[in-house]
Amino acid sequence: MPSRRKFFKAAATTSAVAVATLAMPSIAKAATTLKVQAAWGGGIFLENANNYVKRVNEMSGGSLKIDLLPVNSVVKTSQMQDAVHRGVLDGAHYVPAYWYGKSAAASLFGTGPCWGWSANEMLGWIHYGGGTALFNELMGSLGLNVVSFFNSAMPAQPLGWFKEQIKKSSQMKGLKYRTVGLAADVLGEMGMSVVQLPGGEIQAAMKSGLIDAAEFNNPTSDSDFGMQDVSKHYHLASFHQSQECFEITYNKKKFDGLAPELQKILEYASEAENSNFFWHNTLRYAD
Amino acid sequence: MPSRRKFFKAAATTSAVAVATLAMPSIAKAATTLKVQAAWGGGIFLENANNYVKRVNEMSGGSLKIDLLPVNSVVKTSQMQDAVHRGVLDGAHYVPAYWYGKSAAASLFGTGPCWGWSANEMLGWIHYGGGTALFNELMGSLGLNVVSFFNSAMPAQPLGWFKEQIKKSSQMKGLKYRTVGLAADVLGEMGMSVVQLPGGEIQAAMKSGLIDAAEFNNPTSDSDFGMQDVSKHYHLASFHQSQECFEITYNKKKFDGLAPELQKILEYASEAENSNFFWHNTLRYAD
Repeated sequence: MPSRRKFFKAAATTSAVAVATLAMPSIAKAATTLKVQAAWGGGIFLENANNYVKRVNEMSGGSLKIDLLPVNSVVKTSQMQDAVHRGVLDGAHYVPAYWYGKSAAASLFGTGPCWGWSANEMLGWIHYGGGTALFNELMGSLGLNVVSFFNSAMPAQPLGWFKEQIKKSSQMKGLKYRTVGLAADVLGEMGMSVVQLPGGEIQAAMKSGLIDAAEFNNPTSDSDFGMQDVSKHYHLASFHQSQECFEITYNKKKFDGLAPELQKILEYASEAENSNFFWHNTLRYAD
Repeated sequence: MPSRRKFFKAAATTSAVAVATLAMPSIAKAATTLKVQAAWGGGIFLENANNYVKRVNEMSGGSLKIDLLPVNSVVKTSQMQDAVHRGVLDGAHYVPAYWYGKSAAASLFGTGPCWGWSANEMLGWIHYGGGTALFNELMGSLGLNVVSFFNSAMPAQPLGWFKEQIKKSSQMKGLKYRTVGLAADVLGEMGMSVVQLPGGEIQAAMKSGLIDAAEFNNPTSDSDFGMQDVSKHYHLASFHQSQECFEITYNKKKFDGLAPELQKILEYASEAENSNFFWHNTLRYAD
């Protein structure tokens, strides 16, 4: 929304036009567009990003519009957080595991150790247990100019797709395995050679032999990637990522410059999509 | 938002004032206030209603305001649906079990039979499994001029507070017991004398001997009511209400007259509070 001073200035310089324009209530809506890049090429995670954006755009009634940009369209997934910090992007839809390299503490807000809580309970901690304050403290200590909202609980993830059937942990030694976040460190300690690839590159890497094994997230997403075409062994049980959630992050200066009601729409749309993600996937997981 | 024609009419009749007023963008916000009555006198359910209202009011930035009216302030809880239908109230925050008397099908959208699904899975069915279409069909067949949103999953409820310890089902016979919805019929068949009281009247009814036993919802709400002061026996396990959710209902004509972005705020705030209810109660249940 334009400030009153700017408005008067505009009215003074173009008075006749201004009065005619003023007569339409929609003058109050100075549309802002936010360029937000997604980390996903398709599947239920891109659906999640799109459904978040749909909620923001519909509730703001044209005064705020998110343009959701495709994966890798402006910067690579691994560079998204820096791009948001620098204002090259206004926002990003991804997971903390994708910038885990900057701080192992990222795992606390994304895919943490096995605390014995579910992903939705982790989100309870983020929203009401002090998690948000700790996250903002971390952003301050890393000098990052971002504000983030967390949503969309994901359950414990399968250990993933392997070229050979794994019957004992010693077989893990030396395997080239794709995972992210805290699990990368843990499985590295167990002797795996861990590669952190974005989701869209996993299937091809497995096909070409660059990796021997990989996990992404869940059977629906994994089968969308065609993992069943490059591996015969899907190991379901694991503790490597016992819970996860999405992060929608914005450039803080850009966010702080928005009208309070638009800030709230960006925040509460995150809560709304958290519900929609579960409800929609009750159907999608059964597809 | 005022129509353009109304706006010009107002401007023509009070031109000098209108031009001065026009210069402020906030003229575009013709505030609408919705009178919504809650079914709750306190506790986590009133918090739920308040948190929904907070989300609507913050996201609409003053163009729409919900006034949440106290329980029984305009009509009794049992008359709320009719009051919304007739436009005496603009909306109500309650559960379908409170108008179950009109149709046993209400239970499908509130506290249904034991399907084997959780309350959040029931909400998945309402949102993506055809539930909303069936609900609107039911509203049509009952001639009710309302539109409803469902949210805030509640888990299986304890059988409740009893004057005497129950060791076999034959002891249930003849007991005066408070419950609602489908459970009222089922427990009636089992020989109980079922009374459907609003939450706020349960503790007093138990104290005065009007009833011998009662369930309300969950340990946090029950202890807020002081049930532990009027009963020594709390039976936890049951199947009488294996899942439940809240209903926020609006007069359909009033709802349809709102700008599309405000309709979406009313709808998506329901999804948002569904998440917040779980996250907030992760803390509240531990209080």
